[in-house]
Amino acid sequence: MERRTFLKSAGAVLAATGLAGIARPARADSLPVVRWRMTSSFPKYLDTVYGGAEFIAARVYRVTHGKFNIRVYPAGEIIPGLRVLDAVQSGEIESGQTVSLYNINRSKVFGFDSALPFGLNVRQQNAWMYYGGGLQLMREFYTKYNIYNIPCGNTGTQMGGWFRKEINSLADMQGLKMRITGFGGEMMTRLGVDARMLEAGEIYPALEQGAIDAAEWIGPYDDEKFGFYQVAPHYYYPGFWELSSMITLYVNMDEWNRLPQFYQDVLELACAEANVNMMADYDHKNPEAMRRLLANGVQVHPYPQDIVEAAHKASFDIYAEESRKDQDFNKIYSQWKPYRDLQYQWFGIAEKSFTGLEELG
Amino acid sequence: MERRTFLKSAGAVLAATGLAGIARPARADSLPVVRWRMTSSFPKYLDTVYGGAEFIAARVYRVTHGKFNIRVYPAGEIIPGLRVLDAVQSGEIESGQTVSLYNINRSKVFGFDSALPFGLNVRQQNAWMYYGGGLQLMREFYTKYNIYNIPCGNTGTQMGGWFRKEINSLADMQGLKMRITGFGGEMMTRLGVDARMLEAGEIYPALEQGAIDAAEWIGPYDDEKFGFYQVAPHYYYPGFWELSSMITLYVNMDEWNRLPQFYQDVLELACAEANVNMMADYDHKNPEAMRRLLANGVQVHPYPQDIVEAAHKASFDIYAEESRKDQDFNKIYSQWKPYRDLQYQWFGIAEKSFTGLEELG
Repeated sequence: MERRTFLKSAGAVLAATGLAGIARPARADSLPVVRWRMTSSFPKYLDTVYGGAEFIAARVYRVTHGKFNIRVYPAGEIIPGLRVLDAVQSGEIESGQTVSLYNINRSKVFGFDSALPFGLNVRQQNAWMYYGGGLQLMREFYTKYNIYNIPCGNTGTQMGGWFRKEINSLADMQGLKMRITGFGGEMMTRLGVDARMLEAGEIYPALEQGAIDAAEWIGPYDDEKFGFYQVAPHYYYPGFWELSSMITLYVNMDEWNRLPQFYQDVLELACAEANVNMMADYDHKNPEAMRRLLANGVQVHPYPQDIVEAAHKASFDIYAEESRKDQDFNKIYSQWKPYRDLQYQWFGIAEKSFTGLEELG
Repeated sequence: MERRTFLKSAGAVLAATGLAGIARPARADSLPVVRWRMTSSFPKYLDTVYGGAEFIAARVYRVTHGKFNIRVYPAGEIIPGLRVLDAVQSGEIESGQTVSLYNINRSKVFGFDSALPFGLNVRQQNAWMYYGGGLQLMREFYTKYNIYNIPCGNTGTQMGGWFRKEINSLADMQGLKMRITGFGGEMMTRLGVDARMLEAGEIYPALEQGAIDAAEWIGPYDDEKFGFYQVAPHYYYPGFWELSSMITLYVNMDEWNRLPQFYQDVLELACAEANVNMMADYDHKNPEAMRRLLANGVQVHPYPQDIVEAAHKASFDIYAEESRKDQDFNKIYSQWKPYRDLQYQWFGIAEKSFTGLEELG
């Protein structure tokens, strides 16, 4: 059984890993002042996910008494939100907080540490990354990009989007103009959906004017701010293309290697804390937001079953095609898929039944 | 909206809290060598949960270059597993890793940071503790015990126990001799169950000889080691009295206050990491264990609905009675209950539907 690589620590455990090296008994007062920048793929108004970046920086600053000082920039302030991979790879910036699915058009491998349709929920994702070999596989992949990657947050299962009109079956999806990007967009295209990419600010007017029929965004807390419900009151669930969406810190590999080991440790600790913490923050905020949305007349529906089934088939077709085309994808997918299947089997027992207790609640 | 107290960090965020104090720019080489002991309520063979204690100690050791050195002892080596609260309170030992429900006979308040029947799952528990005000409420409560408490792990939803014979309705529970302790035992007693306390090592022979008819323990990975399935092949789910079970580090308050702030920070970081990490470790191990159990002929059943309903009623009866009797309980319960209800409402939407995707998987 593999243990989370970066958690190897003292004594025998430390000796068992070559990755982190041997703890150097450095005198902490001799540690250098390090100033980094961290660009986020997210704007400030996504305070939960963007807040994760500020959270990491603040924690690192505090624990190192200000010697390791990371300044955080929201998307677009110095680097566009979708250019984080390039900027970190080239060393233009030391680090970036992002969701790897923004790079899915370069390689579908970027889905494994963010979100894949009918993939892992947040706990399964953590299990795979920390104990199931996922982090090792992804770190190997990121060496191609000169990046050291650290999981640092999650959104949980996202909602399936806002629709102007109710949909009742797969037939209603034909030609439907929907704002949905990346892997989800590709999957939806195979279902006959006219998938569109729109920036956040464009979505509301497009829905209002009927330029699009539907739009997916994140979940109740983040979606509420845009007021989508005023023009598209049908709120579908789940976002089966993002059953969880892991957030990652990209660190330029040269910068990572230059860090004193103590700073590496603190950064990884802060990211682990941010990982549990961002999910808890979302889980705190989403229930209240959903209550307000329901009070505002939002109609919540599950996706019709034939849509889910068609999407499921389309997703696994894409996985099979990608495995034939891309060796990197195939390597990880062939390890990930049985892991995912076994996880689904287990989560279908005790954890699933939990949700059956609500009606009593 | 409340933010996780111990995560307050630099700048304005730091200034907003009085709890953690102002970061002192101490020279790290002037930090003292601190040697602590940490007793666990768990034996070594519960390697996932006990491993959490060693994990914390190793992480702290590494990050402080060995200056903050915590030696971990399994249950019974120096302190009995059920005596952790007393030992930490009195200062007999600096710290202890435990599950607060072991103290439920003293006060049902100890359920709020461990497990309550029909309570919170692991994500809801984290949301309540870190963002929903739970940690503040519990810290206030623990001052009575001279203890500083830090969440540091979870088991997730537990299984509902091993039965020698299949049960089909509430009638089958009448007089049934079941190993189940604490709050769960009290609840089961109201259902007509003859609830018994047995130590871990006593369970298998009691089941084998028919001295008991059923026994609950933890989940597949931990249960498998005892071989219960060989004498009680019916494995029920869920353990609705432990929909999650949070693990806590108790620190003697005087020892806590004596720690340099840097050590306090590192200990809290390591506990947050252990929190996400232990759950991931269980989620990694349980699916494999369940697969092996199923291959060994274990029959998995959901609890009959009338039992769940009766248990639900009994649990909320107990909560109402306790609220009248115990002011501390009432204070926290009246904040917790609406929080829990809203969480159940939200988790009944996107996250619940996730589990409906298995059949396709």
